[in-house]
Parts: sequence; C-alpha cells; structure tokens
Amino acid sequence: MTADQTEASDLAEQMNAGLQALIPVAYNMGVRFTALRRGYAESSVPFEGNGNHFGVLYAGVIFTVAEVLGGGLHMSTFDASTHYPLVRSMTIDFLKPGKTDLTARVSLDEAEIARLEQESAGGNKANFELVAEIVDASGEVIGRTRGDYQMRPYGR
Amino acid sequence: MTADQTEASDLAEQMNAGLQALIPVAYNMGVRFTALRRGYAESSVPFEGNGNHFGVLYAGVIFTVAEVLGGGLHMSTFDASTHYPLVRSMTIDFLKPGKTDLTARVSLDEAEIARLEQESAGGNKANFELVAEIVDASGEVIGRTRGDYQMRPYGR
Repeated sequence: MTADQTEASDLAEQMNAGLQALIPVAYNMGVRFTALRRGYAESSVPFEGNGNHFGVLYAGVIFTVAEVLGGGLHMSTFDASTHYPLVRSMTIDFLKPGKTDLTARVSLDEAEIARLEQESAGGNKANFELVAEIVDASGEVIGRTRGDYQMRPYGR
Repeated sequence: MTADQTEASDLAEQMNAGLQALIPVAYNMGVRFTALRRGYAESSVPFEGNGNHFGVLYAGVIFTVAEVLGGGLHMSTFDASTHYPLVRSMTIDFLKPGKTDLTARVSLDEAEIARLEQESAGGNKANFELVAEIVDASGEVIGRTRGDYQMRPYGR
C-alpha cells in the first residue's frame, strides 16, 4: 500500500470503531466502512442476518448502508473539528432485490469539495447532495440514493 | 373495545409476532405495529437503544418505523392471500430531530382502496403511494415519508 492508502485504511478502521459507539443500530447490522479517502466513501453490509420474508435484504438495511456514507465522506474530506454533517432528506430507489452482501459508494469531485470548503468557511452552513450507488456482489446496481446533507458548524 | 377494535388489535398483535420472524432487523429496533385497520396503519419505535452520536434517533430507524407501514396497511386492507406489497422508492424528509419514542401513521381513503382493489383484481399489479407522518411524543411531526409501493400477485 502507498502511504495514502495506509492512511485511508486507518481512517476506515477508526470510523468503524466509532460507528459502534456512535450509531450502534448500523454497526449491529454489520455496516462497515471499507474505503474512506478525500472525495470518496464506501461501505458494506452483509446479507446474513439482514434478510426479510422475501429472502432479500430488508429496505431499512439498504437505506442504512448508503446513509452512513454522508458521515464517512464528511470525515474523510472536510474539517470534522469545525462542522458535522446532517441528513435532511433522502430518496432511495430500490432497483432490484438485494440477495448478496452489498457495497455502497459515493464520491464528490474536487470542484464540489472546493465549493463546500469555501461556503462553510468561517463557521457557516453549507448544503450538499450525495448520490450513492448500491451494488451487489456481482457489481450490479440494486439501488440508488440521493441525499440532501448539510455541513453544520459546531456550537451554533 | 368494540368488535372491530378487538379485531384491529388482534391483527396488530399478529403482525408484531410476524415481524420478529419476517423483518428481524426492524423488530430488534423495537418497531411495533400499534394500530392496523382497513385504510389505517400505525407503528412505533422506542428512543431507547436507537440513538446516534447527536443524541437523537438514527435516520435509519426513522426510515424503518415508517417503511413497515406499507406492509402493515397492505395486510389490514387488501387480500394478502393473492398479493404482497413491494416498496420501489421512498423519500424521507427529516424535519426535526427525534428525541423521544416515535409514532408513524399512514392512511388510504376508500376511493383509493377501491381503485387498488379493482386494478389488482384478476392477478394484476397495482401501484400506490403512501405518505406517512412521523410524530414524536408531544405530537410534533418530525419527519415525513412518501413511498411508492406495488401490490404484486403471488406466483408471477
């Protein structure tokens, strides 16, 4: 691994340790961050234990594996000492049934990162949208989310 | 209780027993049906055990207490021996933080029920939309969902 990859891997490990304390509901589903770096966040959830009566992953689990990406991307990209992320609205499209472990991923390009850094500077709020893809073990997209998030300054 | 209320209460109890087997993830959050009758479904979830690091209910829990209403309303309103409900898309607006036990509720009027009975008759699919309100212990609306569901015939 390069130094950057080591750092990214360490961050995912730290965030997973945090997840258990911070969002135990998600942690207990088996949701884990699998890659976190500037502009990119990835998470996974196992099929085992998360099925519903149709033999497919329950909708609330698919929602959760994608929803946590907002927090993950915030931590890996922005200054987490000044702002925290808040989800304000999310639309999730269930395109196919989830029948395997799932991976969710989201990215923000450098132009959008720069806009948000600028807009949030000086203790201001900034809104951003994240579109996440959720893929199954064969790489097929089984769901998609569009979330409206807000970076909020601490102490206001 | 009237005979109708007894029947509605029995159905909620049956559905809660079923929930444990059918959607254990939701059951383990403490999600329970509290009222199910023709055209009306209501569910609740406790604050305890479902918080996140902001001291408020985790988004995935709020999603779940509302999402299960699709199945609950289907069971209490339509012929569950011929069709099952499937969620295709859901938008959730987080209006305020959830800081207490929550209740979610949804209703379908008789005209819409009649349309769906007619459209699904003879083993056909039928689409319906459910708008659920999520209220806190003081009755304040803290979230709203709009779900696109489909009644699907078994065996097709």
